[in-house]
Amino acid sequence: MARLVMKFGGTSLADLDHIRNVARHVKREVEAGHDVAVVVSAMSGATNQLVEWCRQAAMLHDAREYDAVVASGEQVTAGLLAIVLEGMGVNARSWQGWQLPILTDNAHGSARILDVNGAELIRRFNEHKQTAVIAGFQGLHKETGRITTLGRGGSDTSAVAIAAAIGAERCDIYTDVDGVYTTDPRVVPKARRLDKVAFEEMLELASLGAKVMQVRSVELGMVHNVRIFVRSSFAKPEDIDSKAPPSGTLICDEGDIVEQQVVTGIAFSKDEAQISIRRVEDKPGVAAAIFGPLADSNINVDMIVQNVSADGATTDLTFTVPWADYERARATIEKAKPAIGFERIDGATDVAKISVIGIGMRSHAGVAAKAFKALSERKINIRAITTSEIKFSVLIDAAYTELAVRTLHSLYGLDRA
Amino acid sequence: MARLVMKFGGTSLADLDHIRNVARHVKREVEAGHDVAVVVSAMSGATNQLVEWCRQAAMLHDAREYDAVVASGEQVTAGLLAIVLEGMGVNARSWQGWQLPILTDNAHGSARILDVNGAELIRRFNEHKQTAVIAGFQGLHKETGRITTLGRGGSDTSAVAIAAAIGAERCDIYTDVDGVYTTDPRVVPKARRLDKVAFEEMLELASLGAKVMQVRSVELGMVHNVRIFVRSSFAKPEDIDSKAPPSGTLICDEGDIVEQQVVTGIAFSKDEAQISIRRVEDKPGVAAAIFGPLADSNINVDMIVQNVSADGATTDLTFTVPWADYERARATIEKAKPAIGFERIDGATDVAKISVIGIGMRSHAGVAAKAFKALSERKINIRAITTSEIKFSVLIDAAYTELAVRTLHSLYGLDRA
Repeated sequence: MARLVMKFGGTSLADLDHIRNVARHVKREVEAGHDVAVVVSAMSGATNQLVEWCRQAAMLHDAREYDAVVASGEQVTAGLLAIVLEGMGVNARSWQGWQLPILTDNAHGSARILDVNGAELIRRFNEHKQTAVIAGFQGLHKETGRITTLGRGGSDTSAVAIAAAIGAERCDIYTDVDGVYTTDPRVVPKARRLDKVAFEEMLELASLGAKVMQVRSVELGMVHNVRIFVRSSFAKPEDIDSKAPPSGTLICDEGDIVEQQVVTGIAFSKDEAQISIRRVEDKPGVAAAIFGPLADSNINVDMIVQNVSADGATTDLTFTVPWADYERARATIEKAKPAIGFERIDGATDVAKISVIGIGMRSHAGVAAKAFKALSERKINIRAITTSEIKFSVLIDAAYTELAVRTLHSLYGLDRA
Repeated sequence: MARLVMKFGGTSLADLDHIRNVARHVKREVEAGHDVAVVVSAMSGATNQLVEWCRQAAMLHDAREYDAVVASGEQVTAGLLAIVLEGMGVNARSWQGWQLPILTDNAHGSARILDVNGAELIRRFNEHKQTAVIAGFQGLHKETGRITTLGRGGSDTSAVAIAAAIGAERCDIYTDVDGVYTTDPRVVPKARRLDKVAFEEMLELASLGAKVMQVRSVELGMVHNVRIFVRSSFAKPEDIDSKAPPSGTLICDEGDIVEQQVVTGIAFSKDEAQISIRRVEDKPGVAAAIFGPLADSNINVDMIVQNVSADGATTDLTFTVPWADYERARATIEKAKPAIGFERIDGATDVAKISVIGIGMRSHAGVAAKAFKALSERKINIRAITTSEIKFSVLIDAAYTELAVRTLHSLYGLDRA
């Protein structure tokens, strides 16, 4: 018997048949004796329709009105799931963000959760054994009394915040994959599902393209130490024994992982473009002169590599930007040429970033060096390297992406037996 | 310059093009200097879809969850209209029922409005010239904090309640007809649009089948003396001069109608069935023995005719029920035969009720007698008659409905010149 948060996404709630399947998952946990708070997204497609209507209404629309419109999708699924649960004999009620309330700041369209009131949920668990069905993705800005939304994938964040508020033993994220893998199984058939992954590792895996969970929800889990469990929504509810350990990946504090691997996973992204600025004047303030204008243009810069100047006067500086921003980034730098001072800009869009992630790297030397050697044996040229405490990334020609990922996956012993 | 409520139904908000048309109507009034509160229904079809989902979720569903689901339709149109208005340069914001709030009792699915807080709307009119776009049909039950809905046609009631709360000069109901007619123009091509109709008359016209407005909204208008103006939503906004008297029908206090007609309109309904109980024992409590079981079965009894007993021992008793409840009503009476005591039941489903309505009847004698004579000249047999202060109704064979309506329409001088 424990408190449990169960989160279901839009594809799991696409129609009444899917909603009934979700309800059976919930009923299973309730019957196992758990106190359950369910967090739901909108029906798949519903949010897109609502967003499209807002776009048709006006290209530049008031974000507060946008939020009022799009939040209606979760309102519908929360009510319908509560109805289905009651029809199955489970005492349940729906909660909108403003009813609980889930308080947020007023950054409409991408609001951040400030506080979740879990007291009423706990009282209803204790006194009425009542299951809560909570509309994800939405909240309330207290001062204005207006509906806010958390942005794409916000229901994950809602679920983790609610889990923290009610002190849930676990926050189960039901999704269309059955867990977090060592890398993309479509690229490496031998990819293994991880039983456990540390928050810090998951943050790197998520932000680097393993799109299982929204980054913010993992951050929130890390701050409040909420154990997040990624599992499949397609498993038949009847086939699952709620008293046995479930099958999936637990995202948890690194202290909970007894046998820490050196490397946990390999992420990759082809959505990269490389820009190299040649013979930049090596003087104070030059980095600010380059990256200031890029930030002003809302261009996200990722890897930055600057070598120590060889001649004491000029240096080369390389960085990556999202592929879609490549031309805009070049133009921005070209415009700032007088302030920066450089010879020319080189660039490439056919590049990929491969990242190797593992908390164990902290205590193991030579982890990256092994990779450089293995890649060179495969004749894969490394364009740039960045490192941090728990990961390193290399930028290579995009054509070698799959080969590089498979090579590193084997190298670090991640292949399934 | 006045405060104005403008209400638009689902067919006027069916898609973004329709919503833009509604916005132009609103902009016209704002530019004429009025402070405007707009009340909207859901997009046509949206509510039906939501209701259908609830039905699929469970045949017997919790009315509180049903309300949470179906209220989402108005939330969407309110937000979208606010966005479109702002895109046209009109300062506007949307309001959900719970935000204003519109407080109701907790009769979920058919809640009654208890209180509307108009103070914030008035403050925003005065300080920001801000137009309010309010989701109709929905409210909040204060004690439970849950969303309620007012039942079909509830947006009319929302509009009138808001008009009362802000002291609006007029509540404009934009609908797919351009006003209230003396009778159904499809039956009587010479039917005239009424410039004015008294609340009491409108109540009879509405409940008797002239389906322009929900009865409760007219009652509310009568209680709070809100001038309700029925007008067309299909007129081009650009063709209307907001400073000239608009075209439509004003529903108002009878004191505001200078030249009161004796008869205002003719209503009719074919949705009737007649049941006659023959040789009922004429004893105290017999009416209760008949109508008690019918009420228990939720069967609405309309006309009731009981003659004074001729033999002092038994009498005939006739009443009407909705056509759909005819068989159920007969079975109910048959079952109660021992308690009632009668010889047999006769009945007919091919009957129609024709009603003649007019406040002027109060002060004019012989109004009904004229009708009986005219109908008999047309060989139309009258099965039953009931009368009240401002109307009388006759039950006739359904085949003569159109003939009877046209005859009475001419008789009372209602034909268009």
